[in-house]
Amino acid sequence: MTSITPPKPMSGFPELLPAQQLVFNRCLDIVRRTFERFGFAPIETPAVERKEVLTAKGGNEKEIYALSRLAAGPGEDAETDYALHFDLTVPLARYVAQHKDKLVFPFRRYQIQKVWRGERPQAGRYRELYQCDIDVIGRGSVSLLADAELPSVIYHVFREMNIGHFVIRVNNRRLLQGFLDLAGVPTDRVGDVLHTVDAWEKIGRAAVAQALINKVGLNETLTERILAFLSSSQGKPTDAVLDDLRRQVTTSQAEQHDFGRGVQELQTVVEGMRSLGVPEDYFEIDLSIARGLDYYTGTVYETRLTAYPDLGSICSGGRYDDLASFFTNEKLPGVGISIGLSRLVLRLLDVGVLQPGPATPAVVLVTTMDQAHMQDYFKLGAALREGNVATEIFLERARLGDQLKYASRKGFRFAVIAGEDEFAADQVKLKDLATATEQVIPRAQLVAHVLSLLNS
Amino acid sequence: MTSITPPKPMSGFPELLPAQQLVFNRCLDIVRRTFERFGFAPIETPAVERKEVLTAKGGNEKEIYALSRLAAGPGEDAETDYALHFDLTVPLARYVAQHKDKLVFPFRRYQIQKVWRGERPQAGRYRELYQCDIDVIGRGSVSLLADAELPSVIYHVFREMNIGHFVIRVNNRRLLQGFLDLAGVPTDRVGDVLHTVDAWEKIGRAAVAQALINKVGLNETLTERILAFLSSSQGKPTDAVLDDLRRQVTTSQAEQHDFGRGVQELQTVVEGMRSLGVPEDYFEIDLSIARGLDYYTGTVYETRLTAYPDLGSICSGGRYDDLASFFTNEKLPGVGISIGLSRLVLRLLDVGVLQPGPATPAVVLVTTMDQAHMQDYFKLGAALREGNVATEIFLERARLGDQLKYASRKGFRFAVIAGEDEFAADQVKLKDLATATEQVIPRAQLVAHVLSLLNS
Repeated sequence: MTSITPPKPMSGFPELLPAQQLVFNRCLDIVRRTFERFGFAPIETPAVERKEVLTAKGGNEKEIYALSRLAAGPGEDAETDYALHFDLTVPLARYVAQHKDKLVFPFRRYQIQKVWRGERPQAGRYRELYQCDIDVIGRGSVSLLADAELPSVIYHVFREMNIGHFVIRVNNRRLLQGFLDLAGVPTDRVGDVLHTVDAWEKIGRAAVAQALINKVGLNETLTERILAFLSSSQGKPTDAVLDDLRRQVTTSQAEQHDFGRGVQELQTVVEGMRSLGVPEDYFEIDLSIARGLDYYTGTVYETRLTAYPDLGSICSGGRYDDLASFFTNEKLPGVGISIGLSRLVLRLLDVGVLQPGPATPAVVLVTTMDQAHMQDYFKLGAALREGNVATEIFLERARLGDQLKYASRKGFRFAVIAGEDEFAADQVKLKDLATATEQVIPRAQLVAHVLSLLNS
Repeated sequence: MTSITPPKPMSGFPELLPAQQLVFNRCLDIVRRTFERFGFAPIETPAVERKEVLTAKGGNEKEIYALSRLAAGPGEDAETDYALHFDLTVPLARYVAQHKDKLVFPFRRYQIQKVWRGERPQAGRYRELYQCDIDVIGRGSVSLLADAELPSVIYHVFREMNIGHFVIRVNNRRLLQGFLDLAGVPTDRVGDVLHTVDAWEKIGRAAVAQALINKVGLNETLTERILAFLSSSQGKPTDAVLDDLRRQVTTSQAEQHDFGRGVQELQTVVEGMRSLGVPEDYFEIDLSIARGLDYYTGTVYETRLTAYPDLGSICSGGRYDDLASFFTNEKLPGVGISIGLSRLVLRLLDVGVLQPGPATPAVVLVTTMDQAHMQDYFKLGAALREGNVATEIFLERARLGDQLKYASRKGFRFAVIAGEDEFAADQVKLKDLATATEQVIPRAQLVAHVLSLLNS
């Protein structure tokens, strides 16, 4: 007997059993189908990019996995130029810059792929995870209606996924920057303030205030004024927030200022979201959402599951002025949003909001109690598959009882049972494994019968 | 203006434009749907395994990409334990050994994932490629009918993919080993002979003969006898090959010998394939197929596209006695087959057997010629999507002519056009972009009308 090495789980690299995998795949399908229904085209980029591409866009080098070959021939280098992508935005920028003359703009793409991050594994943090991104990219400009459309896509995704109530929170970075400017924050501190504010949900209001005073160097009055503004949208209806904002714009005569323009943008996006069918109780304006990335220049989004606020944002994004400035001088503005699917689905499986079902995608098991009739079982299976009913034929030799036990353990909905007597009478038995009831059906009607049960 | 770095293509890492990506995804869908229709359950393993797992199973270290972080904190190691998987069989073995007490056997799984190989890029060789695997794994044993079922699944996949005529070639390694033993090849050379024979298609009969004589050390007579046997199935009907083989079994009284058992297995598998609906002209016995891997112990498969033999095998696999001997002492026999989807689809796109269609998954573009009616356009789009018609609403401001140009370039099938007059009359125009014909339709009938056109 050779020595064996029992497999060890790989921390931070999630892996599912078939029943959970089927749930995960169903969620992936919903995302994909919805993205396509809104006219987003799929692209897929390699798992790797050149190292300099990933580091230039501000990637954290400690979290980037580089590739080297385990061995190299004489005179060869085991090192490679490549590292695994840590998000789908950097690859998108490279893709659009590289292929822009073959793409039609506005370019509406979706991308559902794994990304890798060399994080220390901890609860809810993964080293390998799925992201599902949509972006609309223009050559020169993109309508603000695109900013409104993305939340409507997301709304449909999460509704169909049936994961409970959620709120898409919207804000506008231009508005925030404008407000900070009017309030007297020096231009070179605006970025720092927004970075600090971005941690609000994690560290709380008091800690943000501390950081603004001690780290960013604002005085207490200014800090209080900022925090009061950022929290002024809390618990208020959207229109009341917009009314407030417009009043402040008028008062400060800031119509042409970033503050006024940001408020106007936010209002346009909110109106667009309503027109595009996002119900009032599934979105809100949240002035405290800053998104840490300097990259964003207008609309920003975050999304929370109402019952699981500690999950953090399950879907975030925003508008950017220039997607691919590292690669091209051509201005490519756009807006994008990304679902962190692995964290979401794995957590919801964990807490039972999503429930694993069968361990097989097949709904029917054709049992094979009589070896002399294998040809008949094959024909029954083929007919069911022909009718688009996912079907397994039991191919091993086993007693019928064991076959039915197998069917129950895998979670088939129906078992087809037939022996000498049934075949002689041109019939089959159809057993509903959940209710343990049997029906005798003319053989020729099996497929239609199963289909009608599945559709009812 | 900041300095820019125009993106360079990454050699060996294929990347598609949206129209091609949609074709590729359609093929992936066919594979996935067919696998599920036959009752194979999806699993997905991480992109990485521990290095020792990958090297132990005979992976070529020069072709394995290991992961290290680009930077590490003080006292940390940038190296990791992980490397990218180069196939889906090693991960499957690890998965089954790790989770076996939670799986139901026979375990029927499919796995469609990218694999990575640190090859020198050359025509048709990729560093990143999709594999689509199905395996049936037993605890202790698996019926030979599983060996027959896999080709029937593959038959349905390729037929639906509409890629022209193909032949699934079947052989049996036990039969070959038995034959070589009876012919007098020393036991310790049998593996070498099979490795050498595996190169037949690449290097030709003369070179194989040379290698058997010069490298393996067989004499000329034995070499000729082996080559004659291996090529004896060429151009012969399956039943004639089986008749020949059975006659040789009887002549050599090898019924209980590996040769006889292998012939019996091959016959059972061929009969099963017929019963399971693989048509006679889509499979054949090819005694020259050896599959280089020692891993295989019985049935082996290769598949060729008749019109593109130089593509090599597009789908290969076989039966193994023991999947996971590295990880567990429990015997886990099985049978599996794998489609090399990237090489296949990219080549068929290249030669035009698969043709790129539209660059969007949406079939309808709702044009927006009158900004005063945006609400109406949104409603039209929402109704179409509600009816499961993938629809884009044109959100930018542009002249109708430019919008229609955009629709043509992206390949929408229909454009919906409506302005003041149409809305006043509760109508819309539906333009078929391929034929450039327009129909005026009552607004309320738009969705039903489009659906009927799509289904006709």
